[in-house]
Amino acid sequence: MPQKVFPLDSNKKFTDQQLIGHNRWHPDIPAQVHVKPGDVFRVDCREWFDGAIVNDDSADDILHAPLNSVHVLSGPIAVEGAQPGDLLIVDILDVGPIPQEDSGPLAGQGWGYTGVFAKTNGGGFLTDHFPDAYKVIWDFRGGKATSRHVPHVEFTGIVHPGLMGTAPSHDLLRKWNGREQALIDTDPQRVPPLALPPQPDSAILGSLTGDDFERARNEAARTAPPRENGGNQDIKNFTKGSRVFYPVFVDGANLSMGDLHFSQGDGEITFCGAIEMGGFIDLHVDLIKGGMSTYGVSENAIFIPGNTDPQYSEWIAFSGTSVTLDNEQRYLDSHLSYQRACLHAIDYLTTFGYTPIQAYMILGAAPIEGRLSGVVDIPNSCSTVYLPTGIFDFDVKPGKDGPARVDPGMGVPVARA
Amino acid sequence: MPQKVFPLDSNKKFTDQQLIGHNRWHPDIPAQVHVKPGDVFRVDCREWFDGAIVNDDSADDILHAPLNSVHVLSGPIAVEGAQPGDLLIVDILDVGPIPQEDSGPLAGQGWGYTGVFAKTNGGGFLTDHFPDAYKVIWDFRGGKATSRHVPHVEFTGIVHPGLMGTAPSHDLLRKWNGREQALIDTDPQRVPPLALPPQPDSAILGSLTGDDFERARNEAARTAPPRENGGNQDIKNFTKGSRVFYPVFVDGANLSMGDLHFSQGDGEITFCGAIEMGGFIDLHVDLIKGGMSTYGVSENAIFIPGNTDPQYSEWIAFSGTSVTLDNEQRYLDSHLSYQRACLHAIDYLTTFGYTPIQAYMILGAAPIEGRLSGVVDIPNSCSTVYLPTGIFDFDVKPGKDGPARVDPGMGVPVARA
Amino acid sequence: MPQKVFPLDSNKKFTDQQLIGHNRWHPDIPAQVHVKPGDVFRVDCREWFDGAIVNDDSADDILHAPLNSVHVLSGPIAVEGAQPGDLLIVDILDVGPIPQEDSGPLAGQGWGYTGVFAKTNGGGFLTDHFPDAYKVIWDFRGGKATSRHVPHVEFTGIVHPGLMGTAPSHDLLRKWNGREQALIDTDPQRVPPLALPPQPDSAILGSLTGDDFERARNEAARTAPPRENGGNQDIKNFTKGSRVFYPVFVDGANLSMGDLHFSQGDGEITFCGAIEMGGFIDLHVDLIKGGMSTYGVSENAIFIPGNTDPQYSEWIAFSGTSVTLDNEQRYLDSHLSYQRACLHAIDYLTTFGYTPIQAYMILGAAPIEGRLSGVVDIPNSCSTVYLPTGIFDFDVKPGKDGPARVDPGMGVPVARA
Amino acid sequence: MPQKVFPLDSNKKFTDQQLIGHNRWHPDIPAQVHVKPGDVFRVDCREWFDGAIVNDDSADDILHAPLNSVHVLSGPIAVEGAQPGDLLIVDILDVGPIPQEDSGPLAGQGWGYTGVFAKTNGGGFLTDHFPDAYKVIWDFRGGKATSRHVPHVEFTGIVHPGLMGTAPSHDLLRKWNGREQALIDTDPQRVPPLALPPQPDSAILGSLTGDDFERARNEAARTAPPRENGGNQDIKNFTKGSRVFYPVFVDGANLSMGDLHFSQGDGEITFCGAIEMGGFIDLHVDLIKGGMSTYGVSENAIFIPGNTDPQYSEWIAFSGTSVTLDNEQRYLDSHLSYQRACLHAIDYLTTFGYTPIQAYMILGAAPIEGRLSGVVDIPNSCSTVYLPTGIFDFDVKPGKDGPARVDPGMGVPVARA
Repeated sequence: MPQKVFPLDSNKKFTDQQLIGHNRWHPDIPAQVHVKPGDVFRVDCREWFDGAIVNDDSADDILHAPLNSVHVLSGPIAVEGAQPGDLLIVDILDVGPIPQEDSGPLAGQGWGYTGVFAKTNGGGFLTDHFPDAYKVIWDFRGGKATSRHVPHVEFTGIVHPGLMGTAPSHDLLRKWNGREQALIDTDPQRVPPLALPPQPDSAILGSLTGDDFERARNEAARTAPPRENGGNQDIKNFTKGSRVFYPVFVDGANLSMGDLHFSQGDGEITFCGAIEMGGFIDLHVDLIKGGMSTYGVSENAIFIPGNTDPQYSEWIAFSGTSVTLDNEQRYLDSHLSYQRACLHAIDYLTTFGYTPIQAYMILGAAPIEGRLSGVVDIPNSCSTVYLPTGIFDFDVKPGKDGPARVDPGMGVPVARA
Repeated sequence: MPQKVFPLDSNKKFTDQQLIGHNRWHPDIPAQVHVKPGDVFRVDCREWFDGAIVNDDSADDILHAPLNSVHVLSGPIAVEGAQPGDLLIVDILDVGPIPQEDSGPLAGQGWGYTGVFAKTNGGGFLTDHFPDAYKVIWDFRGGKATSRHVPHVEFTGIVHPGLMGTAPSHDLLRKWNGREQALIDTDPQRVPPLALPPQPDSAILGSLTGDDFERARNEAARTAPPRENGGNQDIKNFTKGSRVFYPVFVDGANLSMGDLHFSQGDGEITFCGAIEMGGFIDLHVDLIKGGMSTYGVSENAIFIPGNTDPQYSEWIAFSGTSVTLDNEQRYLDSHLSYQRACLHAIDYLTTFGYTPIQAYMILGAAPIEGRLSGVVDIPNSCSTVYLPTGIFDFDVKPGKDGPARVDPGMGVPVARA
Repeated sequence: MPQKVFPLDSNKKFTDQQLIGHNRWHPDIPAQVHVKPGDVFRVDCREWFDGAIVNDDSADDILHAPLNSVHVLSGPIAVEGAQPGDLLIVDILDVGPIPQEDSGPLAGQGWGYTGVFAKTNGGGFLTDHFPDAYKVIWDFRGGKATSRHVPHVEFTGIVHPGLMGTAPSHDLLRKWNGREQALIDTDPQRVPPLALPPQPDSAILGSLTGDDFERARNEAARTAPPRENGGNQDIKNFTKGSRVFYPVFVDGANLSMGDLHFSQGDGEITFCGAIEMGGFIDLHVDLIKGGMSTYGVSENAIFIPGNTDPQYSEWIAFSGTSVTLDNEQRYLDSHLSYQRACLHAIDYLTTFGYTPIQAYMILGAAPIEGRLSGVVDIPNSCSTVYLPTGIFDFDVKPGKDGPARVDPGMGVPVARA
Repeated sequence: MPQKVFPLDSNKKFTDQQLIGHNRWHPDIPAQVHVKPGDVFRVDCREWFDGAIVNDDSADDILHAPLNSVHVLSGPIAVEGAQPGDLLIVDILDVGPIPQEDSGPLAGQGWGYTGVFAKTNGGGFLTDHFPDAYKVIWDFRGGKATSRHVPHVEFTGIVHPGLMGTAPSHDLLRKWNGREQALIDTDPQRVPPLALPPQPDSAILGSLTGDDFERARNEAARTAPPRENGGNQDIKNFTKGSRVFYPVFVDGANLSMGDLHFSQGDGEITFCGAIEMGGFIDLHVDLIKGGMSTYGVSENAIFIPGNTDPQYSEWIAFSGTSVTLDNEQRYLDSHLSYQRACLHAIDYLTTFGYTPIQAYMILGAAPIEGRLSGVVDIPNSCSTVYLPTGIFDFDVKPGKDGPARVDPGMGVPVARA
């Protein structure tokens, strides 16, 4: 095992650990770990709600999920010699659920969950169609996931960190806060909100204390959105073997990470989201000095995915265009066209006996691919969603005999908002 | 060779052929070909501009491209017994450039083109960055494409029809025209336009004549957007071996197709677009009676991609979020985040010596993948674009020695608007 | 279409064509076609028995197959500037059945065959188990093969030339004849024979005539075995997009080819063998001057397979060791261990309802993989054979409910020796 | 972590552990672990020489390797209800090096080795060309291996157990001993030997003691060869996610396993062999009652490989035929043709600067594929070996500029016999 530089004890809360991470982005959060270019090390990661979501058949915990508390991140980790303008190379050597613990109350101990927030509590990609809170528990066995709430489906995990990134500079943080507030101001009462402003409540800022803490928690950025520093990109292909290149904005780079997923479909459309878990990640870091200008990388991450992602050679795909269900024409709206493609996939899967929310959960958790197929054919964007047929234990392709009928079982727990 | 039911002579204009196709969608265009479920047949397809784009080193033809004339489609082909509510199974048995003709003045005769329209003439995905008209010629040798305008890159074609679909019913056509006009009305003077209303000029409606022709050409839908009938979906994975399921809206289904692409990246971001060519397509058709309700397919196409697409196991990926270059925050705008990911890829490739327009052309023509990676992390959508590293004849990955420098050669022809 | 340098008329016998190929290897066979490095050209190829095998439900033609007449090859093609010691680069740009002819009496006109010779007429890999003559007809539709003689299986063709090679020098030819006769002399009466000596009967030697013909036909090598020049390697991965490097032994290289296969499993275990057909092959040639010593290639072919082979992600595999069915232990005999692995696969498939010969035919024709898994664990070699599960229209994996039962239909035509 | 049913302490010898495994096959070795169908459990495995091979730059340990002591196996594990005639389903849920220990003196603690035995001590596949003892140390980082002894190559591990199998019955054991002794008797003095008879010296037989031990150690079968019970099959594709079906010959099945490999090429041609290591394996077991006759599986293993093996899309392949280097023609000898293919690959790699033994070591350790390409074209078998080009950090393909030259570094340690 590589040296563990950021340990987490599964029996303690995130704020009671030996090293305390953070759940906001701020340049003043001190690095608690120092590594050198070339180092290999392990980082423990807590599931994003710090254990608030449990392994049962109720969605009440999702309905009341403490949104102000997320995402609990491990770090910051300072890399010796890193300076603004460099590219930080991060090799994901390994990533997985909590090692040696395959049962227990914490997501990552042999199980994980996919949730859908109620519309009044954050919503999701298809919140108008699924306005309540829902939860599905997935059991891990070896590298595969199955669920008592969604029978007849099993898939190999495409394990990855949903969130990883470097610390923003003060300038960058100001930029974020400015532009996001401007968006919020266009419709401040919207449900769900357009964006999340700094939220002092429940802020965790590592070892920061006193006045520094008070000041920082009022300006620290929320971790939900991906931004110039990487962050919550939720890219399902950040798997074992991947090499990622992050821009560096502060001395030491100050890398943090968390929000591990056992599996996820492109888009993480269920929002709460993927198959959430805690676990570990083994990293190797290095630097390309001055790499941001050398390679023209001013922001966001560049990456080379690993080569051991699960292989599926047969897919069934669904397409959608940027027209609403009410027949309103939108202009090249790829977000909408992906929603329509996903809704088509859901309609299709329900003809096999699944409930709509079961189908939605499959799209959120399984390694589906979401593609921007046509983005220029005015006025209609065309998006497509690809399902691997091999994850179902029945023949999911259309045929002349009509769909096989599967028993949906106990179904998906729901909690009405 | 399967029986050729829709022949095209490469030496004649589209309107001088034995059978005359169409370039608008309208239910009254008579089927000119009749096939039965189970039949296998060949259809010739003309490149979408009917030969207006030539194999030279000027972009003048793109600048003056006759947009009212597109897309010239082969069909309609009526399938015996097809009725509204059925699913039409279409197997793409083979598809390729014009057989036995590998040199000549017509795209598809051993070559094809990728164009970018001037902003004043339709624009493209990145039109604010590339406002002029540009053209790249690609030469085909075996299954691979190379270009004198974009050196050091070669890729295996992922050949597919950009456009295929069934005829709309009168009701469906009215629905299209209504919603698209409503969108246009929100900003009628926009350049480029929000959508394209019916355009009687240059309309070709098969064998339709007289009053019927006059009436129909004023209401027939343009072929640019994909819609409920499939249409111009530009899905790069509609390759040989694919099985597609189309909803049927009129008796006979009245299938039409065209806009063949030798290769295309997800999004067809260059608009004019992919590697355009004429050629042939071999099809097998069958029916699932009543399949639309049986399988919950009310619109758009479902498909199972073929299993011989070119394999690349190493990719370099770029991400983008829904923030404009001017730092304006947009709300979950996946269109914008894909633009930003593509711009990042362009910035990156230029550090190797390519001009920006060369890099743009690679993204439009090569089999890149565009993914909707995160669509819920308010306010930022995250999109990613994946380039196969194996298409370059140099090492395109970042490293400590900095980028290899390639000679961009003569570059991309441009015509200023 | 590339320029066709070696045409064949499907209505004429191989010896009645405009250019006459050959069915023996000899350095004196004159090149009939001359190309230059960099050239792209098309070659027609006749199926290896020149039409002696027909599309019917009898195996009589296989029983009486004229073995002295094979393989009818197209060529030789001289490459300008090629000299002994060079490496000849051959790019397989495209390869397929006879274009524009998808029905007719000649294999390659929309159909092909797999045969097993009677033990008294050449036998096959499992001739002790299948001592008679058998034949299966496969129909091509698009890129896929199905057979009335082997139902419930369909696979994408992995089209390739079974035989391609450069001409031997006189020295090399002598070497071949010497060593092969020495082997024959160890058991001259063996049935089937250990090797095939030069056979003047039925020899075709291109344009060679008179005394030259008489002398050459008595010393020209048979085409069955692969040798230093490439030759009948039967490598299923010589598919479209492959680049092959052949050693050059005579001025001009004198490349010849034939024995096209629509599909084949590793080993071509049925001998007659793969799915045999005539068709076309498009080639590009180039030279690496002095490449044999530069790259240490003294013999046989090096190649880089194409990247569009059919993808199957799920396989069921069978293993065998080098022990005979009579429990005799052989020493690291990989030939035997592969036989045992194949017999295990046959035993397995028969539990689903196939006859043993149907199962054998699947292994010969479908894109199975044969691996040398262990070659050092004395005394037992271990070989494995991998079947893609996706070629069957039923679930071919073992399970608790026992095997699905398929209707074997009319079965495989047989002719008793 | 699944329950560990067979623990090994890295600080103790194999015979000093809490549970003592075995290094011979015998039906009387008592099961030390009992599991039920459906159980998931972990087994520790020791590297096959129990630590005799060390991490240094000398091959003396390989020269003097204690061959009588191998393979140290974990087990037997009895599965409740298993009876002769059943099929034992074994799912390989996970497999890897020793967890939490990535440095130390034991192979599997962050490193592994590939050896070649001296000809006088067992030899290897190419022992006539490499008659001495050689050793290469590989370092593991994440899922990849590199070596100070073979620079410029790095590959993703295709981790698997080289050896797993069920216990033989008394009848089956007698059958083995009889046929192997008969082979030995044909040339008893051969170096290396044709097979290995029972060897009482160094035998470890689990908890067996007293007279039972004395009797059993004189008749227990050596573990080197694969046999009807699976055993030392060295199949590189027994990776995570694989499902294997073993025949059951004794009550409880009595499954044992060991000889873990971090990576291996088809054939394990270096014999000592693959990248050897100790580690862990997580298994799930189940039964198909009576499955041997239901599925026609009388012996050897059937398996479905996992779907996360490393993906490489570009390969360079070498072919060989069954002619010796002295030009002696052998009859369809696939063992010889694979040797010739491997020698061709070695000749090729040496033109880039590698020493021959470095090239041999690459073929033994990297995930190369060995194929039985042609097994019927008398008298020449054709075998092929495929190298993934992506494992080299230089362009390994042939070109007009000649091979890149790599620095072979310190090279491979050798110990002369």
